[in-house]
Amino acid sequence: MRAAIAGASGYAGGEILRLLLSHPEIEIGALTAASSAGSPLGAHHPHLAPLADRVLLDTTPGTLAGHDVVFLALPHGQSAAVAAGLGDGTLVVDCGADFRLADPAAWEHFYGGAHAGTWPYGLPELPGHRDPLRTATRIAVPGCYPTAVTLAMFPAFAAGLAEPDLVVVAASGTSGAGRSPKPNLLGSEVMGSATAYAAGGVHRHTPEMEQNLSPLAGAPVRVSFTPVLAPMSRGILATCTAPAKPGVTPRELRETYEAAVKDEPFLRLLPEGQWPATSMTLGANTAALQVALDERAGRVVAVVAIDNLTKGTAGGAIQSANLALGLPEETGLPLNGVAP
Amino acid sequence: MRAAIAGASGYAGGEILRLLLSHPEIEIGALTAASSAGSPLGAHHPHLAPLADRVLLDTTPGTLAGHDVVFLALPHGQSAAVAAGLGDGTLVVDCGADFRLADPAAWEHFYGGAHAGTWPYGLPELPGHRDPLRTATRIAVPGCYPTAVTLAMFPAFAAGLAEPDLVVVAASGTSGAGRSPKPNLLGSEVMGSATAYAAGGVHRHTPEMEQNLSPLAGAPVRVSFTPVLAPMSRGILATCTAPAKPGVTPRELRETYEAAVKDEPFLRLLPEGQWPATSMTLGANTAALQVALDERAGRVVAVVAIDNLTKGTAGGAIQSANLALGLPEETGLPLNGVAP
Amino acid sequence: MRAAIAGASGYAGGEILRLLLSHPEIEIGALTAASSAGSPLGAHHPHLAPLADRVLLDTTPGTLAGHDVVFLALPHGQSAAVAAGLGDGTLVVDCGADFRLADPAAWEHFYGGAHAGTWPYGLPELPGHRDPLRTATRIAVPGCYPTAVTLAMFPAFAAGLAEPDLVVVAASGTSGAGRSPKPNLLGSEVMGSATAYAAGGVHRHTPEMEQNLSPLAGAPVRVSFTPVLAPMSRGILATCTAPAKPGVTPRELRETYEAAVKDEPFLRLLPEGQWPATSMTLGANTAALQVALDERAGRVVAVVAIDNLTKGTAGGAIQSANLALGLPEETGLPLNGVAP
Amino acid sequence: MRAAIAGASGYAGGEILRLLLSHPEIEIGALTAASSAGSPLGAHHPHLAPLADRVLLDTTPGTLAGHDVVFLALPHGQSAAVAAGLGDGTLVVDCGADFRLADPAAWEHFYGGAHAGTWPYGLPELPGHRDPLRTATRIAVPGCYPTAVTLAMFPAFAAGLAEPDLVVVAASGTSGAGRSPKPNLLGSEVMGSATAYAAGGVHRHTPEMEQNLSPLAGAPVRVSFTPVLAPMSRGILATCTAPAKPGVTPRELRETYEAAVKDEPFLRLLPEGQWPATSMTLGANTAALQVALDERAGRVVAVVAIDNLTKGTAGGAIQSANLALGLPEETGLPLNGVAP
Repeated sequence: MRAAIAGASGYAGGEILRLLLSHPEIEIGALTAASSAGSPLGAHHPHLAPLADRVLLDTTPGTLAGHDVVFLALPHGQSAAVAAGLGDGTLVVDCGADFRLADPAAWEHFYGGAHAGTWPYGLPELPGHRDPLRTATRIAVPGCYPTAVTLAMFPAFAAGLAEPDLVVVAASGTSGAGRSPKPNLLGSEVMGSATAYAAGGVHRHTPEMEQNLSPLAGAPVRVSFTPVLAPMSRGILATCTAPAKPGVTPRELRETYEAAVKDEPFLRLLPEGQWPATSMTLGANTAALQVALDERAGRVVAVVAIDNLTKGTAGGAIQSANLALGLPEETGLPLNGVAP
Repeated sequence: MRAAIAGASGYAGGEILRLLLSHPEIEIGALTAASSAGSPLGAHHPHLAPLADRVLLDTTPGTLAGHDVVFLALPHGQSAAVAAGLGDGTLVVDCGADFRLADPAAWEHFYGGAHAGTWPYGLPELPGHRDPLRTATRIAVPGCYPTAVTLAMFPAFAAGLAEPDLVVVAASGTSGAGRSPKPNLLGSEVMGSATAYAAGGVHRHTPEMEQNLSPLAGAPVRVSFTPVLAPMSRGILATCTAPAKPGVTPRELRETYEAAVKDEPFLRLLPEGQWPATSMTLGANTAALQVALDERAGRVVAVVAIDNLTKGTAGGAIQSANLALGLPEETGLPLNGVAP
Repeated sequence: MRAAIAGASGYAGGEILRLLLSHPEIEIGALTAASSAGSPLGAHHPHLAPLADRVLLDTTPGTLAGHDVVFLALPHGQSAAVAAGLGDGTLVVDCGADFRLADPAAWEHFYGGAHAGTWPYGLPELPGHRDPLRTATRIAVPGCYPTAVTLAMFPAFAAGLAEPDLVVVAASGTSGAGRSPKPNLLGSEVMGSATAYAAGGVHRHTPEMEQNLSPLAGAPVRVSFTPVLAPMSRGILATCTAPAKPGVTPRELRETYEAAVKDEPFLRLLPEGQWPATSMTLGANTAALQVALDERAGRVVAVVAIDNLTKGTAGGAIQSANLALGLPEETGLPLNGVAP
Repeated sequence: MRAAIAGASGYAGGEILRLLLSHPEIEIGALTAASSAGSPLGAHHPHLAPLADRVLLDTTPGTLAGHDVVFLALPHGQSAAVAAGLGDGTLVVDCGADFRLADPAAWEHFYGGAHAGTWPYGLPELPGHRDPLRTATRIAVPGCYPTAVTLAMFPAFAAGLAEPDLVVVAASGTSGAGRSPKPNLLGSEVMGSATAYAAGGVHRHTPEMEQNLSPLAGAPVRVSFTPVLAPMSRGILATCTAPAKPGVTPRELRETYEAAVKDEPFLRLLPEGQWPATSMTLGANTAALQVALDERAGRVVAVVAIDNLTKGTAGGAIQSANLALGLPEETGLPLNGVAP
């Protein structure tokens, strides 16, 4: 099978390529870009040694045609037009936000503009979402923060162990902010410093978390989300806490999470007492989880670490694509991180 | 006036010295240590060029005698014995935890062992705490996390704008974990990674936050606290959120915080829309604050940045010592950070 | 005395302001900028709390008039025009490159375009350069790398201990590359990575090193210079090595350096065996030096650490300005770094 | 084939395991340690999710017996005794220094104590060294710095383009200093700072560089080596410069390097003008090279980036083991890095 990547010069595109280089069933086809078209990939992703001499093409229906799967790693708002040029015979996997939200009002509130529609949501671990992906021809890859938060909290909500009032504070590496140069993303600014941003209920990933978790909780989950930019290139460490339902015990909580991860190849519940670190998952498609019951405060506290570019974007995209292409879900996806 | 520093080879001791080097009224006297006694300070704090040749003495009543103020930067549990050898004519400022908590049960639960007692609490900004410091001869310097969280939330609780159910997630630089070499604090481990630790309600600073805020809230404040080790040497960025009381408006919240910081030399409410970064306060005794009302989630969200070694430890110690010594509170304390 | 800063929104401008905030004799006057004019300083330098509400003015003769000293922190090529509008009664201190080089051919080779001229060179430690600064009305602040390298090697060359064939490899923090956002300076790119750049003899600071050292060596010093971008915001660590002249002994080398730094307030020769780290000098105007004779390789090896923004730019500028303004050279300049 | 790893709890051991997890022909057998024996691997290398429950055994002849290959990642001085217990039917690959140096006097001068002997040197790219590895039963893995420097300079010396007077300044990530906790390796100390160490001709890797390059140069190569600890976990960026032989041209130099890397799977000469960054090779077995002729200074300047743990240790070990085991040299070794 052959894959094209639209938006190959950015971080998401680069990570898809890194993973596909080790994928035994998918060959790398056309690589396209906007302003970078015409330049060699090595000018943008010099770490991808085997692809350094590949030249970026323009993102057009013609250059993307003839592939089994097309990964879109484009700025928000551009995916619909590109996808329209690709028939149903081509699997289209969109790493952007355009097709994630089901609720047009939520889209309009947080993103503005017209809602493009909804595609099957590419988070196989979310109960009920794996099977539809097996027959999908269009997939919306979840946002990096919603991936982390959903994986941390779906077991508690699905088992009725937590009240639908969720607080999330998540530290993210800077690659989550993309590659467009902005002064606040300069190394000089971010090294040695942590900073909150888009706090107070305005971050665009908030409704996506609510959309994922509310059906499991059987009630609208209210999410208070504060993202923090941390001085690291990759990784999300999300702390998620909700009031425990009355009578929940530590053992019940632990066993619920053990059951939830048991058959999931990419979910890993750490031994009791060991808390997630983003280095555990650097470059891996794994989510490292830990959960505890804070009995003094009456809260479930779940912490998750993922690599925002791997499980949070490119790895999640390939995991869902594997399903839609009829491949084993784990194909070509690393389980172990790169550390120290 | 002359100051001695017991525990001068550690990070807290080093930061006290750095600040005292610019203090116009306090001269640096004896510097003492335990296993490092006999070595030059330059072997431990090579950044303190003017003191590089000073030799560390043993920590004994004799070496600490004859100073106007003695700063204790000792491992937990050692301060009482050292302070006992110093008369009431000497101001003793303890950077350790020994005398912070009023409740022996809380001490025993979180620290274990016998409670040493309670000293005047060195957080002048906490309503009701400035005046007692003016006549104190013993001062307990707050913990770094409680300093941050108390400064972020005291206005909301004192004004009755928030329910007493507080969630705190705070990222800290590694210097907060001290200088004893442990594998998990190696640069190789911490660079490029964020990790939670002591989560689930077990961190020792939790009861101190509750002790500070409950009297203001007029009810026991329950605190769910998750500390995060971030890949930076200094700084705490604490996100604090509690349910808003019914009817609170954004304007009311903003004005409450504006009033709370108005006469405080070291509290700084950022312009609306600008969120704190730890780099704003690196090396400074300033706390940078921002607050917002998340109306969707019904929550007050306050974020604060401090330097854990400055406002969070050594600067806070000197600020309180200034008061007790009859000096202007701001004497010798930097208002601006070092950035980028 | 009052100072204006042209280019106050950049890193050099910000560091000048940080230092002037603690300067007892110089008051901060007009702050000017180009595209940032009209915005508050707090939007650019939120660490400078006391100046957060100051509004940036346009850089014009009018806004800069009426100050005792004007610091120029402008892009290369703009200083001459601005200085022309300021009479000889105003001290003008240029942090740019425009007036550093005496040799028009060197200027043209490395910078291109017309040579603007030569101003007194603001490196008081360089033999013969302190006295002219006392009467200067125009000062060219050295480049950050030439400052480091000159301070490391002037003693060896002045004492005839080294052959005029110098190899320099210097790691620099990213703030040396300025604040204009470029993809290669993004935090995502620089964190966790070291990279060489402008290697092979093309870096513009090369002729400035040669200009400084050749007169002391009594022969043209050839400099092979390789700059390395290191994952840190501040600091230069320069390793400088030249063949030892025949017969040089370790003791002779050590004593030469001891004599060279003896009366210099900002030069610090570390104890034998302790090598410089940039953290020793973070935010300080100090240069930390060490030197050794590698007898196997027959080479003098000198290593120096400075803060590129402080001693390497803003601190050096103020040090020279102090001399020209008739103040003690050390006025307002920190000797100690901020660490850890 | 099955591999045992002695010293599996350290950084070298962990990296060997990370690579073997993707190796199609080598199965992971016994994992042994010293003081960590009895603990699960997940306590030491939580990034190696698939091996988290494997328990570390004692390092004894019994636990290591019965494997096709045994990788030794032990402190210096311990390899000989362990290897003695393993027959010639077992390939033993030593990541330590014990068997690298041929000259007992060099060993004694730099390491002290008795010289253990010399094993085939595991750097296949070094001319003349690939074939002996195909029949080796004992392999000495090169040091990380000598790997970098040798790969950067062997083409120039082998082609007679450079004088045998080499200056090397190399920045290394902290993982090169190992996992034993020492105060100077704490994150608080290393983040935000670069520091020289073991400068002035005393670093133990110096004679190994000379041993590798002198035969190619046809004369004793004198090496002046200054290592720099950089604030990153992984990576070596080495700048290597030697006087150019008279008449060397840029084209000749470029073509020499092009020819040298042409058939080498792990050597990559970057396009002209692009300089190596350690991020290009993070986690990869690739060395990224660039070379230039500095005609002003009359010098060859070669810069190389490797991952000290991969190509510099564990990847190099597996590369050589592949040869000795009759496998294709590239088996299981990543060509691309993980970035950003």
